[in-house]
This record gives sequence, structure tokens and C-alpha cells, in this order.
Amino acid sequence: MEFNRPRGTRDFLFDEMRERKRVENILRDVFQSYAFQEIKTPIFEELELFTTKSGEEIVDQLYNFKDKSDREITLRPEITAPVARLYLNELTKTAKPIKLYYYGSCFRYERPQKGRFRQFWQFGCELIGARSPDGEAEVLSMCNTSLERLGIKTAEIHINHLGIIRGLFKHFDIDSDTQRELMIIIDKGDKDLLKESLIGEKPLIDNPELNAVLIDLIDMVGNKNIIKNIEDLVGDYEETVDSIDELKDLIKALDSYNLENYKLNLGVARGLDYYTGIVFEVYIPELGAQKQVCGGGTYSLIKIFGGDEVESTGFAFGFDRLMNAIKEPEVLTPYIDAYVLPINEETHFESFTIATKLRNQGVKTEVDLSTRKFKKALKHANKLKVPYVVMVGKRDLDQGSVTLKNMYSGEQEIVSVNVLADTIKKHL
Amino acid sequence: MEFNRPRGTRDFLFDEMRERKRVENILRDVFQSYAFQEIKTPIFEELELFTTKSGEEIVDQLYNFKDKSDREITLRPEITAPVARLYLNELTKTAKPIKLYYYGSCFRYERPQKGRFRQFWQFGCELIGARSPDGEAEVLSMCNTSLERLGIKTAEIHINHLGIIRGLFKHFDIDSDTQRELMIIIDKGDKDLLKESLIGEKPLIDNPELNAVLIDLIDMVGNKNIIKNIEDLVGDYEETVDSIDELKDLIKALDSYNLENYKLNLGVARGLDYYTGIVFEVYIPELGAQKQVCGGGTYSLIKIFGGDEVESTGFAFGFDRLMNAIKEPEVLTPYIDAYVLPINEETHFESFTIATKLRNQGVKTEVDLSTRKFKKALKHANKLKVPYVVMVGKRDLDQGSVTLKNMYSGEQEIVSVNVLADTIKKHL
Repeated sequence: MEFNRPRGTRDFLFDEMRERKRVENILRDVFQSYAFQEIKTPIFEELELFTTKSGEEIVDQLYNFKDKSDREITLRPEITAPVARLYLNELTKTAKPIKLYYYGSCFRYERPQKGRFRQFWQFGCELIGARSPDGEAEVLSMCNTSLERLGIKTAEIHINHLGIIRGLFKHFDIDSDTQRELMIIIDKGDKDLLKESLIGEKPLIDNPELNAVLIDLIDMVGNKNIIKNIEDLVGDYEETVDSIDELKDLIKALDSYNLENYKLNLGVARGLDYYTGIVFEVYIPELGAQKQVCGGGTYSLIKIFGGDEVESTGFAFGFDRLMNAIKEPEVLTPYIDAYVLPINEETHFESFTIATKLRNQGVKTEVDLSTRKFKKALKHANKLKVPYVVMVGKRDLDQGSVTLKNMYSGEQEIVSVNVLADTIKKHL
Repeated sequence: MEFNRPRGTRDFLFDEMRERKRVENILRDVFQSYAFQEIKTPIFEELELFTTKSGEEIVDQLYNFKDKSDREITLRPEITAPVARLYLNELTKTAKPIKLYYYGSCFRYERPQKGRFRQFWQFGCELIGARSPDGEAEVLSMCNTSLERLGIKTAEIHINHLGIIRGLFKHFDIDSDTQRELMIIIDKGDKDLLKESLIGEKPLIDNPELNAVLIDLIDMVGNKNIIKNIEDLVGDYEETVDSIDELKDLIKALDSYNLENYKLNLGVARGLDYYTGIVFEVYIPELGAQKQVCGGGTYSLIKIFGGDEVESTGFAFGFDRLMNAIKEPEVLTPYIDAYVLPINEETHFESFTIATKLRNQGVKTEVDLSTRKFKKALKHANKLKVPYVVMVGKRDLDQGSVTLKNMYSGEQEIVSVNVLADTIKKHL
């Protein structure tokens, strides 16, 4: 008999867990400083919630099953759809804009590979019912601040407005199946494949003018100044004008958020039909195949689920990918402040009393619960990198004192039990 | 088309989520002060992990299913078995004792009713490989401190040592099926039912002496001094002596932890075979049918899963039940510190710049993203119970200033943007 964790899942142990918690708390701080409030939805939802949003194809990648009453349910693959469901169930009467964030695990049944797990975590937000592009700028600013506060210096935010390419499709009267096919190819980011699809042997679209514009368009990547080049390229097709104007307004709003280090990238597609305005992705180039750590945009998801036309802007960080981009601190602070050790059996029980005192005063304290003798226990404490060992001897204790040993300097001093917690806290 | 959350699950919204987070953080603080470190295991595990621990009957209460490769998996109903699995996979070589804690959701397919949900949360710990009863006293002390720090004054910790009743069974040569049947009855806490089973028409056990002792035994509930009465009642049956001695040692260790307010209760059974030493439960009487908020004890679970004979002591709080016992704070602190409002369209963009400044300096700041006019927006800010509104007017701004309005007192002052964050933080 041998039990293993299910394929594609992970256990998180002590140091890794602390580091994840540290990163989680930084993101919480940033999101809360932007006045976003946390919500939580269930781990599983009705299957139809996700097929309605993403199509039947998604079922292949889901942990879906029938519960004991034959309901079709699924572990959630993402949290955007559950948030839209939550909004419809609970929040339609709440004053807008509604700003919420979530942190939780999601599940995808796909072949496990480097950096891809079957249970993974998303840290994301939704801004529901705000005025665009102000809301978009707010969300982008929060995304950027998060990356800065995490110390990730190589992250690149790439922004697009899907209305531009949709405007072109409209101008050239391209049917929606072809549109979708093309967006999927663009989303792959493989420019050779795209060129092959447009000007290869069997072109998807039989229109040399549009094909030429598209090939130039998805090559448009640069700072905010390329908005001029975009306008030069497609501004004459009137169906693109509104979207170009929205993008200009967004740039202006981003300026007021002091956000400069982003790229306009007309090749960001994000595949899904429900995006109505801007879309964006964040790349951390050194992560290679896992470089996309964040995706988001503005969409009309609530309408898809039978609600009103309420736009929301949101994004989600792939938390596990973020973790891969974060340099671990060189020295992890010890998880305890002090280790209480009886010098021999005589003070065995007193060591518990002293530990209890320390803990009640906020000192993270370990006390010896093993059968180790004093010297071995001291060695063990040293391995744990405890800054202070409290040595409890009979003679000291009769005077109401213990010996406090600084494990870094090796210095020892006799300290009254009454001021022990304060003494340790002062030195930490 | 209408989507609802799955039956028996919950969505958590803003205030409730903050309150849960506050409670979670108190428990983290306490557990960490006792030198326990956090771990996390997957949401689902192999089905066999739980049937091995709890028997095939448990399947009726599980969210179990086959994944797309026909593996029998299940959403976890509890986290003790996953921790034992984790220990066997990852921690057998780690120096003992190992002290870990977890916080996560568990799942049970049962009829939803008041206070019972299909996704619920457990906050628990395991102390693996410590010397008993010191380890047991440590864990009980942590449990008690948690309840104190949460301000739950009515909680009662009830402790038993299953070795005593097992000793009696051994003395009277009771077969294991009858033992199990009887323990299940005892676990129900229905003393009339128990009496009926022992001295009714069809007695489970055909031994008047044992029956009389059992009926007296499970009535033994009281403070540590009843250990004498226990000894008087069953101390002459030599198979109980070791367990009574262990209970005495535990009382001594608890004394050194300054833990006094617990009850010995020989009627605590906890039904499961794998407990080897003490067991305990925490009751909060005012919760009625949901009064048991915690269960734990010492067990040899690792051996059941094919590992060595390593004892561990652990407990888990039913987090949702704890939440029901906690009085909500009368005044919830506002989730934001300041609300930035442009007085008119002229300062629309500047309000974003000011909000960004405040946020970067740690002030939780909302900025107007609606199309509300100033007066309506001010009303909205008032509804949100924001302590400060920053009013951004053109004339002030030309002097590098804004008007800061204290929403509680109604006072207004003109403050330079450079010292705005400090001014707000000073007053908060």
C-alpha cells in the first residue's frame, strides 16, 4: 500500500508556504490600497457556467463530474465566470462601481508539464460597472503596482484594443467564423503561422488589402507613441476610429496614473469573444513558455449569463507563475524567535510554563517536546536557526531567572523570567 | 438561463470575508507562536486514502468521481489523512517532532441544513512524533489559547483517554465488533440510548458488572479532581492502570501550561479506531446542534497508511462553526481610508494622480470611477463610511493643495498634496 498525491498536484511545505504567503500578502496590500475587497466563491460550480462562457470544447480540460444527485458540476477552471454568477446572484443592487478581488485555486485536467499543474492558483480582480477608460487605467495601474511591489523588474504589460481589428473585419465584411479562426491564430503569437494563413497557399481571407494591413498591424508593438503609427495604418477605415479614440483616452488616463512602462501591442488577441474593449497581458520573458503571468481586459460577461449589459474590467495573475519569477530572499527569517530548553529533567515542566509566558507575550516559541538530552537538543535548535535559546536550569530558576543564549553571537546572559519576553523582543 | 451556486455551498462577500480573514489571522498568530508551520495539500486525493482511514461507508458522504484517466479521486472530506500522506511522501526524514498547521476547505456530500455546508473550512494542526503527554498538553494549550484569543468565553474542552474503556473491554474480553458498536453509541452522547443498549431488553453485552461500570464511567464529567473518582471506579482493573497514569501525567503537564479550565469527560468517544491515547472535543453550548467546534486526539494514522509506528496528536477547528460563535465587532473599521473626488471635470485626471500618490504611501484609497456628479459622489462616499474625502478643485490644485474633509466631524482643511498621505495617516 502506498499513497501518493494525485498526478499534477503539489504539496507545499514550510518555507515554500511562507514565501507564498508573503507574496499573497503583498498582493492583498496592493489590491486593498486600490479599494478592492475580497470575495470567495465555491471550488465547484455548475458545468454549464463555464461551457456558456467558453464553449463546449472546454469540457476536455475540466475536472467535471456528476454529483450524487446527478448534477453536472465541475471544479472551477478560472474565477471570472463565478464572479459574474456571484454578481448576478448577489450584487445587482449594489452601487457601482463594484471592486472585488479573489485568491483561490483553479483546476485544469491537462497533461502535467514543467510549470503547469492541475491545481493552480489565481489572484485576480474585477471592476464592475466603472466608466471606461478610467476603470481600465485603474486596473492596469494596480497590476503594475503589484509587479513593482513584488520586485519583478522585467515584467512587460502589453495592451491592445480589440475594437481596432474588429473594425477592420467589419469594414471588409469578414464572417464571424473566419474572424474567430484568425483571432485564435493571432492569440498563438506565431507570426509565421499567421503570415502563412494570410498570404500562404490557402489564404483564410481572400482580400490582399486586408491581409497586408493585418500583417503590419500585428507587428505594431511599442510604447504609447506608436498610437500615431496605428492611426496612420488603419485610421482611414472609419470602423476603427472609435476604438483608436478609446485607446487614446486610455493613454491619457494612464498618464494621470503615472503609468508609463507599458507597451501597445496590436498582436494581443486573448482568443475569447466576450472581450469588448481593451485586452492586456503581462509577460516575464525569462519564464520562457510560462512567460504570460497575467491576462485581462474589459468584457461583457454578465450579459452572456443572462444579466444586463454591465461591463467589467478584470485580470488574474497566475500566482504559481509569479512565484517562479520572484527571487527567493537569500536569508529566510527564522520561523521562531526562541527555543526553550530544560537543562535536565528537573526543569522539564517549568520549561512549558516559561514557553507559555513567552507565547502569550507574542514571542514565537518552540519548547522541547522530544526525548533529546540537552546537548543534542541545543544542536537541534541550532539547525533550526533559532536566534535565541532559553536554557532553564534549576539554580537560575530558584532565583526567578533563566540563561538566554544568543545563537548568532554565542553570548549568554542571565535574565529574569519576568522580563524575558521583552528582552527577546528588544533584540529581535 | 439562470445560474446559481451549487446547493449547499456559499459565496462570501466583503464584510463577511474580512471578518473570516480577521479570525483566520488570529489563529495563524496563535499557531505560529507555538512554532507550528503552515502546509498545504491538494483539494482532491485518491479515494482510497479516505476509505483506508475511515472505511468504505464514508464514500456515501464524499464528492468522489473518476477523472478522465479513470482514477478514483475525491474532494477531501478532512485534512488529517492528507497530512499523514504528506508525511509519508515528504517528511519521514525530517527531525521530529514535526509541527504543522493547515487551513483549507473540505467537502461532504450530505443534506445541507442549518450550519452544515457541502464546502466547509478546517483550521487544524498535527504534532508528529512528540513525546506524550507533553505533546498532548502543548496541543491542548494551543487549542485553549486560540479560543481565548478569539474571545470565545463559553467554550469547554472535554478530554478523555480511550485506553481506560479499552482496558475494561480487554479485561472482560469483549470482541472488537461489540466494542465498535458500543463506541459509536457512546459517541452519539445519548445516555438513554446507551443505558438501553446495556441494561435494556436486548443488552449488547451480557455482563452485569461491566455494564454497571460503563454506565457510571460515561457519567464521569468534571474538572481534573475527578481523576480520583475514575481511579476508584476502574483502577482495580489492571488493564486500565497505564491509561489512568497517562491521564495523570497529562494533568501534570497541563498544569505547567497553566491550563486549568478543561473537563475530564469519560463519555468522549470520537468513534474512530485509530485513536491510541487521549481524545478531546470542544463544545460551545450556545451553538446547539453545532456545538462541537473542535475534535482531536492522539493517533497512529501513519501506520494505517503503511508507515512506521509514529504517533501524532492533532485537532481541527470547524472554522465555520467558530465563526458562528464569534460576536461580530459592533463597528467594522472602514475598508478604505480616503475617497478622492474631483469637484468637477476639470480635475478629473488629477484625482487619479493624487489617488496613486496616496496608495503608494499606504493609504487605502478609492477614487471616483463613476459618472456621478460631485454631490452625488459625496453622498456615495458617505454611505461607504469613508473617514476622509479628498476634494480636488482647480483653484486649490493650482496652489498644490486639496481640501480634506473629515466625514465624521464634517471639518474641512486645505492640505498640501505633498503632506496629504501623512496628514490622513496621522488622523486615522
